[in-house]
Amino acid sequence: MAGDAVGVGLIGFGTIGTGVVKVLQRNESVLSERLGFPLRLVRIADLDTRRDRGVPLDGVRFDDDSDALIDDPEVSIVVELVGGYDAARRLTLRAIDRGKHVVTANKALLALHGNEIFDAAARKGVDVAFEASVGGGIPILRSMREGLSANRIDSLHGIMNGTTNYVLTEMEETGEPFEAVLKRAQDLGYAEADPSFDVDGVDAAHKLTLLTAMAFGAELTFKEIPTEGIRGVTPLDIEVTRDLGYRIKLLGIAKLHVGEDGGERIEARVHPTLIPASSLLAKVDGAMNAIAVHGNAVGPTLFYGAGAGEMPTASAVVADLMEIAREIRRGQAGRVAPLSYVPDHLRPKPLVPLAELHGRCYLVFTALDHPGVLARIAGELGDHGIGIQSVVQKGEVAQKEQGGSVPVVVFTHPAREGAVRQALERIDGLPEVTAPTRLIRIEEGV
Amino acid sequence: MAGDAVGVGLIGFGTIGTGVVKVLQRNESVLSERLGFPLRLVRIADLDTRRDRGVPLDGVRFDDDSDALIDDPEVSIVVELVGGYDAARRLTLRAIDRGKHVVTANKALLALHGNEIFDAAARKGVDVAFEASVGGGIPILRSMREGLSANRIDSLHGIMNGTTNYVLTEMEETGEPFEAVLKRAQDLGYAEADPSFDVDGVDAAHKLTLLTAMAFGAELTFKEIPTEGIRGVTPLDIEVTRDLGYRIKLLGIAKLHVGEDGGERIEARVHPTLIPASSLLAKVDGAMNAIAVHGNAVGPTLFYGAGAGEMPTASAVVADLMEIAREIRRGQAGRVAPLSYVPDHLRPKPLVPLAELHGRCYLVFTALDHPGVLARIAGELGDHGIGIQSVVQKGEVAQKEQGGSVPVVVFTHPAREGAVRQALERIDGLPEVTAPTRLIRIEEGV
Repeated sequence: MAGDAVGVGLIGFGTIGTGVVKVLQRNESVLSERLGFPLRLVRIADLDTRRDRGVPLDGVRFDDDSDALIDDPEVSIVVELVGGYDAARRLTLRAIDRGKHVVTANKALLALHGNEIFDAAARKGVDVAFEASVGGGIPILRSMREGLSANRIDSLHGIMNGTTNYVLTEMEETGEPFEAVLKRAQDLGYAEADPSFDVDGVDAAHKLTLLTAMAFGAELTFKEIPTEGIRGVTPLDIEVTRDLGYRIKLLGIAKLHVGEDGGERIEARVHPTLIPASSLLAKVDGAMNAIAVHGNAVGPTLFYGAGAGEMPTASAVVADLMEIAREIRRGQAGRVAPLSYVPDHLRPKPLVPLAELHGRCYLVFTALDHPGVLARIAGELGDHGIGIQSVVQKGEVAQKEQGGSVPVVVFTHPAREGAVRQALERIDGLPEVTAPTRLIRIEEGV
Repeated sequence: MAGDAVGVGLIGFGTIGTGVVKVLQRNESVLSERLGFPLRLVRIADLDTRRDRGVPLDGVRFDDDSDALIDDPEVSIVVELVGGYDAARRLTLRAIDRGKHVVTANKALLALHGNEIFDAAARKGVDVAFEASVGGGIPILRSMREGLSANRIDSLHGIMNGTTNYVLTEMEETGEPFEAVLKRAQDLGYAEADPSFDVDGVDAAHKLTLLTAMAFGAELTFKEIPTEGIRGVTPLDIEVTRDLGYRIKLLGIAKLHVGEDGGERIEARVHPTLIPASSLLAKVDGAMNAIAVHGNAVGPTLFYGAGAGEMPTASAVVADLMEIAREIRRGQAGRVAPLSYVPDHLRPKPLVPLAELHGRCYLVFTALDHPGVLARIAGELGDHGIGIQSVVQKGEVAQKEQGGSVPVVVFTHPAREGAVRQALERIDGLPEVTAPTRLIRIEEGV
C-alpha cells in the first residue's frame, strides 16, 4: 500500500492547469517524500487539445471529455480549473455526485454557489478544497481554518487582487492616470481585456465573501458586500495623500461587531482605502497580495505572497491535492469544515450598513474657484457634525485637475458615514460645486 | 458522540499556561463551533499550586502531580509547558509512552531531543504538535508543513526572536548602546535576567533547527548551526548602515544548495544581518516576528505576527489542541509527518561551511589614526580578491567610538567568506589595528 499512488484528474488546461502539471512533475520527489506515496496525474480534459503547453504528458490521457474524466475510476480527485460559473458548477457537482473529491481555484463559483457545493460534498462524504481561490499561493485559508482556529477573529484587511494593486502601484510610481496604466497592464498581460472583474472590486469581493464566512461563521452572502473599484482614483489623490503619509490600496475589509445583547453583525466592504504608509500592508507592491488578520488571542498577523499567476496558484492547488490525498489513503473525509465553522454553526449574520461606519474620510470637492466656496463646504460639514482635520488649499493642487473648477481636498475627523453622505448630498447640490464629491475612506488601525 | 469532549491536561501553569486556560475559556464557544465538540481542560499540574493566576478553575483538578496528570484516563492530550530540557523530556516521553498526544511550545527540547521524541511518538501512534515553538502565534510550521507543501523550499529568512528584535529596534530609535537598551528591556520584563539564550542567538538557532528540518528534510542538527548574537552590534553600525539604506536584524537564514551531482547541502546560520530597508522584513519592529519563505512554485512569501507572549503563544498551543482533538475523534493519528517529510526521508544533510558563503560584507576596522592605514587595509583586502564597494571615511565617524583609534567602515563587493576571514586575520595582525575587526553579513535578496 505504501507505494499506491492517488489519481488526479485535471479539467481546464490553461495557465493554472499547466502550472499544476509543472509542479506535479518538477517537485515529484519532494511531494512523495512528504506524503510517503506519489500523486499521479491520470488524465486531463480541455476543449483545446491541440495547443502545446510545453509540458511532457507521457502516460497522461488528454482529451476534451470532462465528464468521462470525472467518471474515470482511476481519478480520485478532480481539479476544476474551468473558471466562470455555469460549467464549473455543473462539473463540480457532477464530480461530487460521483464521489470524487474536488480542488478548485474558483472564488466566483464558491462565493455564489458555495453553500450548495459544500452541502453536496458533506452529503457525499467528499472534500472540496479551495486554497488557491484566495490569495493565490498564500496559505491564508488554511491559516484561517487551522492556524488561527483558537481565535475569535476581530478583523481582517486584505490586498486580495493583484491586478488592482499593480495598477495602483504603477500610478504611484509614474504619476499617470488610471486609464493609461490600465492600458499598459493590459498590453503586458497583467490585466484582462475586460478588466471590470478586477478593477471594479468584484474579484476582491468574491474572496472577501469566503474569508468573511471563515472568520466569523457567517453564511456566504456575496451579493450584499458593498463594493467599489479603483476607476475613480486619480493622480491627485495619490499625490496629496502620499504627502500626508498615506497610501491608497484596494482593500477587502471585514470586522466583527458584537452588540450589547451579544448579537453579532458583520462589517464587510471592498473599496480603495487610505492606510498609513508605515503599515506593513502599505509596503505590499505590484501584483503581490497580503492579508492582515487580527485575532483576539494572537493579535495582529499578516500573510504575504503572490496573489495570482501560474506557479503560485498551482502551489496552492497541489497543497490541496496533497491534503486530500492523505485523507483518501486514511479512508476518511471531512476532517475540517471547509468554511472553518461546522455547518450547523454557519449562520446568516446581518451586515452593518455603510451608513453606520465610523471613521476618517478623504474628500475631494470639485468647485468653481470662487471666494467663499470653502466656507460653504465647511459649513455643510459642520452642520452635519463632521470636523475638518485638514484642508489642502486649492492653490496647491489647482494645477492637478482640468476644467474651470478646482479640487478642494479635505481630511475629516472621525465621523459617521451616514452623516458624511448626507453632507455630501447637500454639498453636491451647491451651485458652485461642479462634479460629484469623491470620498476615500481612511483606515488607521492596519 | 457529538457532544463528547476531548480531555486536556496542562503541565506548567506559568505565563503561557495561563494564556492557554484563558483562550480555552474565553473562546470556548468559537472553539466548539469550529470543532463540532468541546475541548475540556481536565487537569493542571505545576509545582507552585498557591499563586493566583487570575483565571477561574471550576471543575479543573489542580495539583503538583504531573505524573498523575499524564496517567489520568480523562486526559487525552498533554500540554507540556515546563520549558528546559530534562524534566520536559522526561514528561513528554512518559506521556507518549502512556499513549497520550503531546502539545509543546518547547523549541529547545525539540531542537535537541526531537529525533528521539518523534520516533517514540510514531511508534506509539500518537501526535506531537509544536506550532508554538517557532514564531509564537504565527502559524509558520503548519504553513511549511501543509500550506507550502507543494514547493521545494529554496530559502528562508526569519526574525525569530522577539527580544533581540526589540533591543535592535530600540537601539535604532534611541541611539543608545546595546547594554543600556538590554538593561531597560530587562527592567520592563521584555528580556530575561539571564538574557544569553536570546541575545546570543541560541533561541533563534533552536527555531532555525526545526524550520530547516521541515524545509529541506534535513535531520535535526542544532549543534552544527553557526550562531552569533547581537552583543557586538554598536550604535555606529546602526547609524552608518541606515544612512546607506540598510537595517540590522538578527536573522535565522537557511538555504538549499544542490550540487551538480544532485547532492543536497544546507546553508543554515543565525547572526546579525544587514538587509535592505525597503524589504518587508526590515519593517518588522519591536518584539514582532516574521519568517520569509521562498518556494520554487510560490515564490516569495512572508508570515508575520507576535513571536512570543502569553496570548499569542496560547493561540498556537490551542490550535494544536484542536487539530489533535479532531484526530482523536476520528480515531487516527500521524496524519502529517511532524517535520513535514516522512521519517524515512529525513536524512542527515551536510551543512555548507561558512567559509564557502558568498556575499557582501560590512566591516568595521579599528585602527590608529595614521596616514596610510586605509591603504594597508585596502591592500590586504585586494590581495585576497575582495573588492571594496564603498568606504565611510573615518572623519565622518571618528566621533562615534572612543579611544585613540578610529573606526574605518568598509562595504565590500560580493566575496567568499573564507577569503574575507583570511584577510581579516592579516589585517587584525597589523600594528596599526588595535581591535578585532567586526563583520556583519549583508543579505540583498530578502
